Amino acid sequence: MDITSDTHSQHISRQFNHELEELKTHLMAMGGLVEKQVQDAVSALLDGDSTLAERVVDNDRAVNDMQIKIDDECTRVLARRQPAASDLRLVLAVIRAASDLERIGDEASKIARNAIELIGSNNGSRGFVEVRNISEHVRRMVRDALTSFARFDTELAMEVVQEDDRVDSEYQSAMRALMTFMMEDARSISPVLGVMWILRALERIGDHANNLAEYVIYLVKGLDIRHTDPDDLDHDAITGPGPARKQ
Amino acid sequence: MDITSDTHSQHISRQFNHELEELKTHLMAMGGLVEKQVQDAVSALLDGDSTLAERVVDNDRAVNDMQIKIDDECTRVLARRQPAASDLRLVLAVIRAASDLERIGDEASKIARNAIELIGSNNGSRGFVEVRNISEHVRRMVRDALTSFARFDTELAMEVVQEDDRVDSEYQSAMRALMTFMMEDARSISPVLGVMWILRALERIGDHANNLAEYVIYLVKGLDIRHTDPDDLDHDAITGPGPARKQ
Repeated sequence: MDITSDTHSQHISRQFNHELEELKTHLMAMGGLVEKQVQDAVSALLDGDSTLAERVVDNDRAVNDMQIKIDDECTRVLARRQPAASDLRLVLAVIRAASDLERIGDEASKIARNAIELIGSNNGSRGFVEVRNISEHVRRMVRDALTSFARFDTELAMEVVQEDDRVDSEYQSAMRALMTFMMEDARSISPVLGVMWILRALERIGDHANNLAEYVIYLVKGLDIRHTDPDDLDHDAITGPGPARKQ
Repeated sequence: MDITSDTHSQHISRQFNHELEELKTHLMAMGGLVEKQVQDAVSALLDGDSTLAERVVDNDRAVNDMQIKIDDECTRVLARRQPAASDLRLVLAVIRAASDLERIGDEASKIARNAIELIGSNNGSRGFVEVRNISEHVRRMVRDALTSFARFDTELAMEVVQEDDRVDSEYQSAMRALMTFMMEDARSISPVLGVMWILRALERIGDHANNLAEYVIYLVKGLDIRHTDPDDLDHDAITGPGPARKQ
């Protein structure tokens, strides 16, 4: 191969790597915005700040725009570069991840809309403790899932997958507590139902964070663990031989 | 170009078209199963048939397996054929559609699980009329969305998108009616809440059918209408000049 064409192909490959890095950067920027949306939506409820809640609802458009932009970028990369193997998997994972982030954004917006109604009805703060606890848990899941994507860290991704089960059981017990409130006081039904929708939205955000983590494992290990019970996973096969653990 | 290579490239292209048709066929098979899951889940509730509900929960695994298979097929086609333009759009649309079908399957399974609890608690049939009406509406949306995908029929796809708004308002009014039941009779809170989760699942199935329809429009027109209010859409630009309509 003559030098010119070698330099040319090096240039192409550098350019391609740059495009793949850009995709990841844009996904992370979208992730940052979505994290903030979830945090603001919950703060709006807990602090009774309906202006903040309105802003979350408005900002959902920015999240949607980011997804369309990332999708277009991915389609262009697929069409122009025709990547194979791990590069192809990365582009597909970015498309899927952007779709989950967009849905997290939707849920944040639903939380904000419920917050606006709850603030307006001024019906006390029953269930707010549960919202605070579960939201902290779920936000950590989203953050860890994004970090695991940025670093291709399957160990961290596995923690997110396992965390999702704990969030589900916290969610179940919060729902039971809220149902008791409703039964004790019929006037609380409407506001408590609003809090239930918020908890449901948080639980779904946890599911989406779980999806993000699964894409990382798929990317790195070529292993599709969707629809597999976390208890059935061979943890060592996924995260590789790590440091010995204390029992 | 000599005849051999011409025949060869015709062979490749025929083979490729065959693979794309196969993708669509498998997606339609998955769609058929998912439709049946939704129908069975709702029938199980309305007829108090918990055996049928258990079967829906069990069958969700088959839906998940189909998604993984379709995803693998799409990834192989992308890697081997490196399709461009409309073929690339088709493969990406199949990946997205399979993901929405899988989520419809999840919702059917949630409906079935709630049905099992409701049948067990034997708490009457409050809200069943609403479930029946909305489920018929939503099932028609899923069927039409799949048909529009099979035929690349943007006219039908647009109807599905517009239908989704009607389902949303039916859902809102059903929820208000159910809340009234709860307030009138505290003992109804738990079962009515179960019906509310079912309605919520149906409403989400409508959203996924709406997504399917949007992929068809994107495929045919290269037009991304996600996150666009249906009222803002230029209907003629999407469906093209059709037969004159009666006012």
